[in-house]
Amino acid sequence: MKAVGVVVEYNPFHNGHLYHIQKAKELTQAEIVIAVMSGPFLQRGEPALISKWSRAEMALENGIDLIVELPYPFATQHAAVFASGAVEILHSLGCDYLCFGSESGNINEFDSIFNLLAEKKDEEDRLVKEYMKQGMSYPKAKSCAIQELTSVNKTQGLNLHMPNNILGYEYYKSVRSNAYPMQVCTVARIKADYHDKKFTSDTIASATSIREELLQTAGSLTTIEPFLPSSSYQALQQYKETYLTYHTWENYWSYLKFRLLQTTAEELSTIYEIEEGIEYRFLKYVKEASSFQDFIRLLKTKRYTWTRLQRICVHILTNTKKEEMQTYSKPAYIRLLGTTANGRLYLKEKKKQFLLPIISKLSSFEKEKIVLDVRASQIYALGVPVAAQQKLLEMDYSKPPIMK
Amino acid sequence: MKAVGVVVEYNPFHNGHLYHIQKAKELTQAEIVIAVMSGPFLQRGEPALISKWSRAEMALENGIDLIVELPYPFATQHAAVFASGAVEILHSLGCDYLCFGSESGNINEFDSIFNLLAEKKDEEDRLVKEYMKQGMSYPKAKSCAIQELTSVNKTQGLNLHMPNNILGYEYYKSVRSNAYPMQVCTVARIKADYHDKKFTSDTIASATSIREELLQTAGSLTTIEPFLPSSSYQALQQYKETYLTYHTWENYWSYLKFRLLQTTAEELSTIYEIEEGIEYRFLKYVKEASSFQDFIRLLKTKRYTWTRLQRICVHILTNTKKEEMQTYSKPAYIRLLGTTANGRLYLKEKKKQFLLPIISKLSSFEKEKIVLDVRASQIYALGVPVAAQQKLLEMDYSKPPIMK
Repeated sequence: MKAVGVVVEYNPFHNGHLYHIQKAKELTQAEIVIAVMSGPFLQRGEPALISKWSRAEMALENGIDLIVELPYPFATQHAAVFASGAVEILHSLGCDYLCFGSESGNINEFDSIFNLLAEKKDEEDRLVKEYMKQGMSYPKAKSCAIQELTSVNKTQGLNLHMPNNILGYEYYKSVRSNAYPMQVCTVARIKADYHDKKFTSDTIASATSIREELLQTAGSLTTIEPFLPSSSYQALQQYKETYLTYHTWENYWSYLKFRLLQTTAEELSTIYEIEEGIEYRFLKYVKEASSFQDFIRLLKTKRYTWTRLQRICVHILTNTKKEEMQTYSKPAYIRLLGTTANGRLYLKEKKKQFLLPIISKLSSFEKEKIVLDVRASQIYALGVPVAAQQKLLEMDYSKPPIMK
Repeated sequence: MKAVGVVVEYNPFHNGHLYHIQKAKELTQAEIVIAVMSGPFLQRGEPALISKWSRAEMALENGIDLIVELPYPFATQHAAVFASGAVEILHSLGCDYLCFGSESGNINEFDSIFNLLAEKKDEEDRLVKEYMKQGMSYPKAKSCAIQELTSVNKTQGLNLHMPNNILGYEYYKSVRSNAYPMQVCTVARIKADYHDKKFTSDTIASATSIREELLQTAGSLTTIEPFLPSSSYQALQQYKETYLTYHTWENYWSYLKFRLLQTTAEELSTIYEIEEGIEYRFLKYVKEASSFQDFIRLLKTKRYTWTRLQRICVHILTNTKKEEMQTYSKPAYIRLLGTTANGRLYLKEKKKQFLLPIISKLSSFEKEKIVLDVRASQIYALGVPVAAQQKLLEMDYSKPPIMK
């Protein structure tokens, strides 16, 4: 059985994701689709709207055959680390293809840039440092450096200021630089930009615009219905009924505030990604901020992007230390979230060739290896009202993989 | 001007406290009464129902002339440390007398036991250790040891199983063993026992029974009105109107739970009073407990008293480390909460003789010395609904001492 892998967040699963899965199958003629998905906290440093289990359900209803969790130490990172963790897992699961969505839609453009930059690594590093000295953030400096190097050599074409092109390039680079035997292809995003906050088509909308709408309509989902498969729509409705809320940063603001008010600069500086004295800004502005949004607005500088600050807040919330993260240079396990019958066939056929152990139940695995994922799930559960917390809190210990 | 000192919590201030102040004046003929009062967290390991500022107002309206805060490292401790901090402060403020309430009401009984135990220190220590080996808690072992030593020598009389006798004995011991030039006297508690949960008189009730009633009547204070001076009654009403709630442990339960869920046993073991592997019980039961009461009930053992467990929870909430507490063997400052005109006269007359610096405004004092008190106030402020938090949060930075 040939498998194509995709890297996803499904926050929430919408028609654009469905299109991506269909195209991935069409392009590769693969028989099964494997997704590696972020858990409770996402690459943008935000809690997922609904739990990983509900998002996995959505995926399995709509064309994904096997879905696993991207561990916390990779899911909550900038593009390069996020991509390397995801690619490693897809490779370990024996994927023959990797297919990602991009603004470009042309894999040759990724190939050209990769070949060019492979020769110019030192120059790239030098330019990144130079731009950062001028006060740019790392992602901004990186895309400017690449843009400068490539435009000089007339291989324009791939716009590396576009968010999905950036991530896509990192996937491509991970596969190629590790020389993994995986073919990489890309599907052009259609009808919606990543950053769109308003709807621009009748059936396809960005996850960003769907979230905006969802959080504003206080319970009524009718305006987002056209953009989601019906099973996704129902899962969203059901989640709200069961847990009384979607998860947004504001649900965690009082916890973050509490943690910052009870701690010292010295203690805070042990948290992952707290660097360069930024801890003092955190301790100063927490006393003034009236909400999470307000807090990030106060913290924001030219050098620290909104998403980087949000990711730091996630690490404070989950109490993730620098020394803990050091031990996770590569994924050490694969947490299985769910399978279809087709996915189970694949598992049966390929399991022995997998390069990492598969965790189906927490009890069957050394817990210290998965401690960061478990902690993130526990903290995530506190984002719903007390009455609904226990159910969510226990899920990570008792829930077996979903079988469709 | 002669001054009598009292050690108080006023949670809340009631007619029994008024009686104590009047008797203290009568017995000593002192011209002013000085109170040293716990701040946001109390000796029993509970948040105070209302803020220290509102409790200081109550005190100044009802006979106290000068009120200062017992710093956190003494206020949240077992009887001996609580008493030694409070006595030290009253001595530093030049009090000529110390007057405490007790079940006994006879200072000679305290004197006899002190003299007897001074000779039998080693035997007392040995007995305490022995009883603890049998599984008793420290306070229980201590009162049993003393009871055994004193009954053998026919100086019964002082029942050291009674909570106010225990505290009183510690005050008495602090004054005598430091040879402070302070006369000590005691007033018998009337008409209500410390542990009473029901009302047993028409005008005097224990703070415990008043709190029980207050928290059950959801807003209506009429049933407790007979037991409070009218100014106290009004202050309680006003507090609820301004901050929407009284402070109870349940208001902090979600923060405590969050902190425990995000931490490791190793990190938890750095918290003050976490000893003997009790951290593992905390981490285990937090996942099962449905409320703070339920949590303590699950944690409870023969050796760990309810109040000791609550005090540990306070230290977790305020993130107070063992190494921080080590630096506070004696009070280093006196935080002034309020004065009457009479109190200000006393300050003017005696200020130069005080043995510790007086802090009237936070900005005028080295902040690192008062960091634990400030942190405790900040965390305490999170116990009210978000809408009312900011006002309470800023109070510790901006509020000057109360002038009556």
